[in-house]
Amino acid sequence: MQAYPDINSISIIGAGNVGSHLAIALKNAGYEIKHIVARNPKLAGSIKKLVDTEVLTSIKQVRYEPDMYLICVQDAEIHAVAESLLASDKIIVHTSGAIDMSVFSGKRNAYGVFYPLQTFTRELEMIYSDIPFLLEADNEHTLNALTCVAQRISGNYSCISAPERLRLHLAAVFACNFSNHMASIADYLLKQEGLDLELIRPLMRQTLKKLDTLSPKEAQTGPAVRGDEKTMSRHLEELSSEPELEELYKLISKSIQNKF
Amino acid sequence: MQAYPDINSISIIGAGNVGSHLAIALKNAGYEIKHIVARNPKLAGSIKKLVDTEVLTSIKQVRYEPDMYLICVQDAEIHAVAESLLASDKIIVHTSGAIDMSVFSGKRNAYGVFYPLQTFTRELEMIYSDIPFLLEADNEHTLNALTCVAQRISGNYSCISAPERLRLHLAAVFACNFSNHMASIADYLLKQEGLDLELIRPLMRQTLKKLDTLSPKEAQTGPAVRGDEKTMSRHLEELSSEPELEELYKLISKSIQNKF
Repeated sequence: MQAYPDINSISIIGAGNVGSHLAIALKNAGYEIKHIVARNPKLAGSIKKLVDTEVLTSIKQVRYEPDMYLICVQDAEIHAVAESLLASDKIIVHTSGAIDMSVFSGKRNAYGVFYPLQTFTRELEMIYSDIPFLLEADNEHTLNALTCVAQRISGNYSCISAPERLRLHLAAVFACNFSNHMASIADYLLKQEGLDLELIRPLMRQTLKKLDTLSPKEAQTGPAVRGDEKTMSRHLEELSSEPELEELYKLISKSIQNKF
Repeated sequence: MQAYPDINSISIIGAGNVGSHLAIALKNAGYEIKHIVARNPKLAGSIKKLVDTEVLTSIKQVRYEPDMYLICVQDAEIHAVAESLLASDKIIVHTSGAIDMSVFSGKRNAYGVFYPLQTFTRELEMIYSDIPFLLEADNEHTLNALTCVAQRISGNYSCISAPERLRLHLAAVFACNFSNHMASIADYLLKQEGLDLELIRPLMRQTLKKLDTLSPKEAQTGPAVRGDEKTMSRHLEELSSEPELEELYKLISKSIQNKF
């Protein structure tokens, strides 16, 4: 087994939410960003402004290889990117919560996963030291190399297995994506009556703050958990012209009253 | 129409989450807490420690009336409390998001609603100045009196109608109670694999922080909104032994992909 040297230079494939933030984080941490590959010319232009490096529109244009390729494309495209890098012997990792690292196996060693468990929005500044990185690699040397990179960006990292990563990704969909959608529905319901989400912002902040000291189950309040059928009926009446929301209300209330 | 004097003394009926917090907030704001009525002897004991005042187990024990009765009992019990105060000519208000103030109408004037749009947990300290109070009253004098009280506790108050209050309450159930339940499910899914909710806390914080600058709809990320069917299939597979969560996952994902 070959001992990989420290990683000094990185090329980032994909300039979406994840790619653009990791490019900044890695540059700030002192890494040489060798290339950024952005197929979309609009993204290529905006990433060029953020991280002044060579921006390519295809991996085929790479002449001088980096120590590591960091793949930040959509899950469905990871396989194709891996195929196009078959000839390379550099470290190659993806950043997906849901894709197995076996996508890289076969003709190479030195591959893995470098999954930032965070929600990225291109326009918003982020505190990179707060991002947990979940790492997995084909061998110890690669894992050590990835650990060094994660350490330099964030300090918050764990080595986890593929099933654990998938489980964390699923949990994150509930705690982040679905929870945000609950706020979307609230916003929609308020706008219908000319009311502003601003009114329930203190409530949203406090809801999260409670979880500093209580488990989510202990922190649960509201009509469902206290079995207040009358209030639930009034809410369902209020939702009678929105069958989809009515169904959601019933199902989530039932779930609150069940085992979780 | 009679002009009501300023409110100086308040009796609080109910010593649950809301009652105990409002007792502290009102005391801190300089009000005389004349009585607290707590039917449950255990609650009576703990509230007595927090706010040193006369703690009664029934409204019938009240001898010297306060300027205002603040009803903090469960929705289903508000009517009975109102009945037991029929002989009083003092201001009487409830703190419910879902009950119409007409519960007090009939034989009296000077009634209303003093609804704190916040999630209360008895053991947790709160910043009372951050609580929005939603006020409604039978007449202008009562409303002025309630406004003064809200101003002294929080400064964040609005006068709103009963349908608006119900809508806010419903929106709050989505943005607070249901959103918290999403964290409960995440916690449950992680524990099954021996993983800790701590790992996704930075994600939960960032999810809420994004809403400082984006609407929830703009802030939405995840497999559903980007139409990543493959990841959703893997998640649903992961949930195959949890039909209730599977159904929730499908329904919320569908809702994200629809109009909101």
